[in-house]
Amino acid sequence: MVVSDLFEHAAKFFTELQTDICRALAEVDGAADFTTDRWERPGGGGGIARVLEGGALFEKAGVNWSKVDGELPAEIADQMPGEGRAFRASGMSLVLHPRSPMIPTTHANLRCFTKGGALWFGGGADLTPYYLFRDDAVHFHSVLAAACDRHRPVGDYDHFKAWCDEYFFLPHRGETRGVGGVFFDYLGAKGEYPAHQVFDFVRDLGRSFTEAYVPIAQRRQTETYGDLERAWQMRRRGRYVEFNLIYDRGTLFGLKTQGRVESILMSLPPLVRWDYDVMVTPGSPEAELLTHLRPIDWLGRRA
Amino acid sequence: MVVSDLFEHAAKFFTELQTDICRALAEVDGAADFTTDRWERPGGGGGIARVLEGGALFEKAGVNWSKVDGELPAEIADQMPGEGRAFRASGMSLVLHPRSPMIPTTHANLRCFTKGGALWFGGGADLTPYYLFRDDAVHFHSVLAAACDRHRPVGDYDHFKAWCDEYFFLPHRGETRGVGGVFFDYLGAKGEYPAHQVFDFVRDLGRSFTEAYVPIAQRRQTETYGDLERAWQMRRRGRYVEFNLIYDRGTLFGLKTQGRVESILMSLPPLVRWDYDVMVTPGSPEAELLTHLRPIDWLGRRA
Repeated sequence: MVVSDLFEHAAKFFTELQTDICRALAEVDGAADFTTDRWERPGGGGGIARVLEGGALFEKAGVNWSKVDGELPAEIADQMPGEGRAFRASGMSLVLHPRSPMIPTTHANLRCFTKGGALWFGGGADLTPYYLFRDDAVHFHSVLAAACDRHRPVGDYDHFKAWCDEYFFLPHRGETRGVGGVFFDYLGAKGEYPAHQVFDFVRDLGRSFTEAYVPIAQRRQTETYGDLERAWQMRRRGRYVEFNLIYDRGTLFGLKTQGRVESILMSLPPLVRWDYDVMVTPGSPEAELLTHLRPIDWLGRRA
Repeated sequence: MVVSDLFEHAAKFFTELQTDICRALAEVDGAADFTTDRWERPGGGGGIARVLEGGALFEKAGVNWSKVDGELPAEIADQMPGEGRAFRASGMSLVLHPRSPMIPTTHANLRCFTKGGALWFGGGADLTPYYLFRDDAVHFHSVLAAACDRHRPVGDYDHFKAWCDEYFFLPHRGETRGVGGVFFDYLGAKGEYPAHQVFDFVRDLGRSFTEAYVPIAQRRQTETYGDLERAWQMRRRGRYVEFNLIYDRGTLFGLKTQGRVESILMSLPPLVRWDYDVMVTPGSPEAELLTHLRPIDWLGRRA
């Protein structure tokens, strides 16, 4: 398959995936549905922003699809594979902020990028709990690992898991964003695997997302919580904002390439607190979470 | 006066200014007082963080003092006046987040920096209203302009006012942070003015802050507001976070030079909302604010 055909297939897959995931999430929520916002990018292309706000399970959920093309700024183009500055990119990205602090926030993103003769895929998925349930972290990683394992050696869970821990790290807080997941970029850029094999893996990973996340959301929905847990959630959401605005390459890339601001910043949590120098009580569930914000071998595969 | 003596005098002035401003603000608040947190910087020096949370007028107010020294990272040192990488810096900075959306948020910062044989001052003050009261913007600018005018040509209001509009600008939103104020940096670095004259100006500007801000806070305290105004305030606070985490040089400098995280991020608002693609009603007070988030000649001095 030529580069151009594969890119079009990927873009089509991402829009179908957006539809499927939104349908599944609205069903789980039960109370609210996604709005649909079609937008065009002045520089070329456009996208569909789908947002659910004020749901029963989700306080704010955003699922984006986009297919854009244009010219990259030279300083960004120089750091990427492929000749020239002309690019095309398509992707699906989501961030889900549940209402209950017992249900973790999650993010997933899959994208296809072409520049000159090069084509590659990037993406990942990660889980950010407010309270630690070991079973949830293990379940999330298990489903992602299984998707990777079905596509070895393209899908390399151990590598992508470590990459995720490294990427979603907040240096000034000395913490990972959550309990991790998988992250990869430039997959297939050097022709190290046939592009269709990489696409097969990306498709499978994308279709695995609801299985990785939805059972966790459902089983934690019945956990009770009060003002203390809600305040803790809002403070931890502050860390999410700090990561996205200071470090996240996707966010900064979007803002610097005149991307659609509301779609890019859809990832930010609905309600956030910053209180001064908050200390957690030793031995509390809040302290328990903090001790797990570091690379952890959840599946015991590196014995 | 030699560089070293002047730096020590400035550091002493900044700590006295912190004390005076905290006393004035606690009196205005009436319900809460500032806590005092002394801290040491592993790389050299330390500071005093003073925070008032949950007050009657102030939801969160932070006034920092610091005096630090050490070695700058090469990429930062290369962009500054003075030879070598060894530096000393002392300053006072504050951010006040009132509870009422009718009272503007404000920020002020004054600092003295030495590197090699160079010494300079930087700083400024700016006002970020949630609802526009023309009188407040005019009052704030008038007091700052008067302080500048008493120290011409060192205090150059027209220049510093334009610099403030340029600095506190959010490119991805196409808005200034608020109605501006003054901003300057590297003042005295090239020996363009005697250092003691620059210090005289900085002292006067610092002592003018309460006169510039407190009357505004007091006269807007009686304005009524409801949930709609409070939600608008929380959304606009989101812009404040976006500016500080993506663009503010002081914040990013602090985080990159292993500054004290809780003191640096004390500037972030207590409670913030991000809702998707919020539109304002044409002709509403919210829309009125937005039309004023651009450089405006509040004092009519450029007629």
